[in-house]
Amino acid sequence: MNATTIAQRMESWSFPPRYDASYRPPNDARYWNPVRETMPPAERDAAIAVRIGEVMRYAYATSPFYRRKWDDAGIDPESIRTLEDFERVPVVTKAELRASQAAHPPYGDYLCIPERDIFHIHGTSGTTGKPTAFGIGRDDWETIAENHARILWAMGFRPGDTIFFGAIFSLYLGSWGAMVGAERLGCRAFPFGAGAAGMTARAAQWLDIVKPAGFYGTPSYALRLAEVAREEGYDPRAFGLKTMFFSGEPGASIPSVRDRIEDEFGCRVLDCGTMAEMTPFMSAAGTKETPEGMMLFQDMVYHEVCDPDTLRRVPYGAQGTPVYTHLERTSQPMIRLLSGDLTHWTMDENPCGRTYPRFPKGVYGRIDDMFQIRGENVYPSEIDNVCNAIAGYGGEHRIHITRERTMDELVVRAEYTAAVGTGGDAAVAAFRRQLADQLRKVLGVGAEVEPVPPGTYERTDFKARRVVDDRDLYGQVFERARFETSRKW
Amino acid sequence: MNATTIAQRMESWSFPPRYDASYRPPNDARYWNPVRETMPPAERDAAIAVRIGEVMRYAYATSPFYRRKWDDAGIDPESIRTLEDFERVPVVTKAELRASQAAHPPYGDYLCIPERDIFHIHGTSGTTGKPTAFGIGRDDWETIAENHARILWAMGFRPGDTIFFGAIFSLYLGSWGAMVGAERLGCRAFPFGAGAAGMTARAAQWLDIVKPAGFYGTPSYALRLAEVAREEGYDPRAFGLKTMFFSGEPGASIPSVRDRIEDEFGCRVLDCGTMAEMTPFMSAAGTKETPEGMMLFQDMVYHEVCDPDTLRRVPYGAQGTPVYTHLERTSQPMIRLLSGDLTHWTMDENPCGRTYPRFPKGVYGRIDDMFQIRGENVYPSEIDNVCNAIAGYGGEHRIHITRERTMDELVVRAEYTAAVGTGGDAAVAAFRRQLADQLRKVLGVGAEVEPVPPGTYERTDFKARRVVDDRDLYGQVFERARFETSRKW
Repeated sequence: MNATTIAQRMESWSFPPRYDASYRPPNDARYWNPVRETMPPAERDAAIAVRIGEVMRYAYATSPFYRRKWDDAGIDPESIRTLEDFERVPVVTKAELRASQAAHPPYGDYLCIPERDIFHIHGTSGTTGKPTAFGIGRDDWETIAENHARILWAMGFRPGDTIFFGAIFSLYLGSWGAMVGAERLGCRAFPFGAGAAGMTARAAQWLDIVKPAGFYGTPSYALRLAEVAREEGYDPRAFGLKTMFFSGEPGASIPSVRDRIEDEFGCRVLDCGTMAEMTPFMSAAGTKETPEGMMLFQDMVYHEVCDPDTLRRVPYGAQGTPVYTHLERTSQPMIRLLSGDLTHWTMDENPCGRTYPRFPKGVYGRIDDMFQIRGENVYPSEIDNVCNAIAGYGGEHRIHITRERTMDELVVRAEYTAAVGTGGDAAVAAFRRQLADQLRKVLGVGAEVEPVPPGTYERTDFKARRVVDDRDLYGQVFERARFETSRKW
Repeated sequence: MNATTIAQRMESWSFPPRYDASYRPPNDARYWNPVRETMPPAERDAAIAVRIGEVMRYAYATSPFYRRKWDDAGIDPESIRTLEDFERVPVVTKAELRASQAAHPPYGDYLCIPERDIFHIHGTSGTTGKPTAFGIGRDDWETIAENHARILWAMGFRPGDTIFFGAIFSLYLGSWGAMVGAERLGCRAFPFGAGAAGMTARAAQWLDIVKPAGFYGTPSYALRLAEVAREEGYDPRAFGLKTMFFSGEPGASIPSVRDRIEDEFGCRVLDCGTMAEMTPFMSAAGTKETPEGMMLFQDMVYHEVCDPDTLRRVPYGAQGTPVYTHLERTSQPMIRLLSGDLTHWTMDENPCGRTYPRFPKGVYGRIDDMFQIRGENVYPSEIDNVCNAIAGYGGEHRIHITRERTMDELVVRAEYTAAVGTGGDAAVAAFRRQLADQLRKVLGVGAEVEPVPPGTYERTDFKARRVVDDRDLYGQVFERARFETSRKW
């Protein structure tokens, strides 16, 4: 079957995308777009290869950024006909996007639509350097809504369900994308937000009043919310949540974190999300029947997992860094955006029947988050996992990496629970021992554990930052060396 | 001309309202809906009287709350045929809404649509008591967008203008209503938000990057933003704002506050807003050519200014409390909602050519905000106005009302500027004297002024609370007496 015939079978498969805003499957349908979600992967890949050509020709014609980049690399969009050809296209880095916006403020010369057609402005937080601006066209906003509605459907949401959004509404695109998806699906959106003083206690009050079916936020915030809710006299399980879905942090795919959240709220926990630049960011998401890890909805965003040195795809089963390509965005399409994240991917039969590949453990780290302790690679998410699996763990910890004498030292300062605290020195010592043993077993290196009382560390309304690397004192040279090292796993 | 003939001439005049989402006037048109905005007031009133009948019959049929309330009062919706008849309809108080929601959680028995048709949930902050929930239907959301687009058009915004929203996106409906209006109009929405740590400095950074045409927030926040922007090395005038519009506080209609904001940002300042329950709350708003005070778009929301005792309309030119009625909402229509606010209204020729009445000084207080000092009525907004008009004023103040010995004492603690501070004791004393003289002149009673250094008081991201009434210690009885007193101006 050739790509044209395939495309004719796929629902609303056109570029630029045009969707019927009144479309909605019957409530008992499992799939929003049954053909696109369950078709043979090889046929879908053939259609994606054609689509990539359309997106590249569009970007080449409308964006000086892409034209310059591809001309410099000797890439003619017409020559990209297969997914293998596409691996030759150079990746886009965040640094390139920042440079483009500095030279062509505020949207960069990868804005492919007239500025007057921009519908919404969002951006990165810029906590580490100059922020980048997202200029999102009206058509793209509708496509984002359509795509997120399709994912929320796969998560099990149906029209009339209330979804509570417990994440800040600002530059951060996560909350907005999820909200417009809920609106498109016919859910009741409760955009509560987060981040201002006193909001967490009020979130608990409103969850108790409204009893929503769904919750969106970061895993760190969900755990904090459970704590605050109990302090305020609420039982988080009594909120009656059925599904909580998370992005912004790896937590929801870290088994022990997921277990804690499921246990606190008594509901299904799903992970989703790639990058703000890639919105519809939920193109990678857990589904109701395939809740672990994230399914890759390849016909929305084309996900590749690549060797960080060659930037070519690694085989299914292998580890690498995700590289993302928009198939349905026209304002600032990202074509092979390098994430710098870390994951592995698989292509197995999925319980939900979708024929997509998956990130079975989510996105579990950053290439540059990994650190080496005495020759062993360690990811912060592994330590999170160990902590959260220990019964006496009080909910927060910090990871300190220091270089005393000549050797790197790993110190994990972990809160114990109030119950452990009332058990006195013996109980605290037992907690310390248990955590240290488990860390050595999982990490392969010893970590010093320093138990600290419950509530020692600030909780976050957003993304947690738990690593304190005192070796930063050694400066840029060391940093670069560490990055080079970390790329050679 | 009878009401039916009139209605046929008015654009999109139907209940329930249905608007063409693709409609937009040409850019050089002054009016979004020329007929509705410039028709003879008597003809508009005739159409409104008919519409009120439709809204009342709808609410009577779908809401146990209204049915019970009107049956108890002996009001038959069929008997309400004129605007004078309508004055007999009992007002709705916020306490009644809270009681209805307590008995019928979460939306109360004044929800007139099936719960499954609710599109968005918002609410009051509940900082003073149990919050109330807003369940807004999808049709209403579209009507809100249409109405706010019409007001933003009157303010001078046109498709392609960027509007920066510097107010929190959460329960608070203000930011959402203004944003969906901007979206509907074809503006670029930049929903930055406010309220989280560090956001004000970042707001300044983004205003400098994006150079929006418009800004929405509270007046207090705009003044704080100007301060922070200068600390961060930005000139607020260089943001290039053309129009800032405000709600949530009386500030934008207080001449000296408006002057300060205009001076800081070098742009037009417009006031708007009624109450969250009344969204589309911008039904009262300043327009480009009639910038002072607020025009009452009577065909969106029917505004009455009433004697707080009789709850019947006062004549144009007189003072009273606004009572609001939705003409275009179907989910939780408010029919004669008592605001408890304080204003006066006029019906003069408007420079913009609209034939609506106005609140020429905005909404300048609350019935229960007024306090008496030695027999004189004092409103906090009058004190705000005096402070902001003094050159050496540092930007914040607090109003302390105490009862020492047997007499009420009014103490205004006001920040002076850094410039006054460097002038030493003499300069501070001169500032104190000037402010005290001016307060005595405007208020008619003496106030003790205590100058305090710049930066003494916390700035707010939202609505300022400046009155500290130590007489609250005297408890409920005194409070009630004070409320009764205050109603008899």
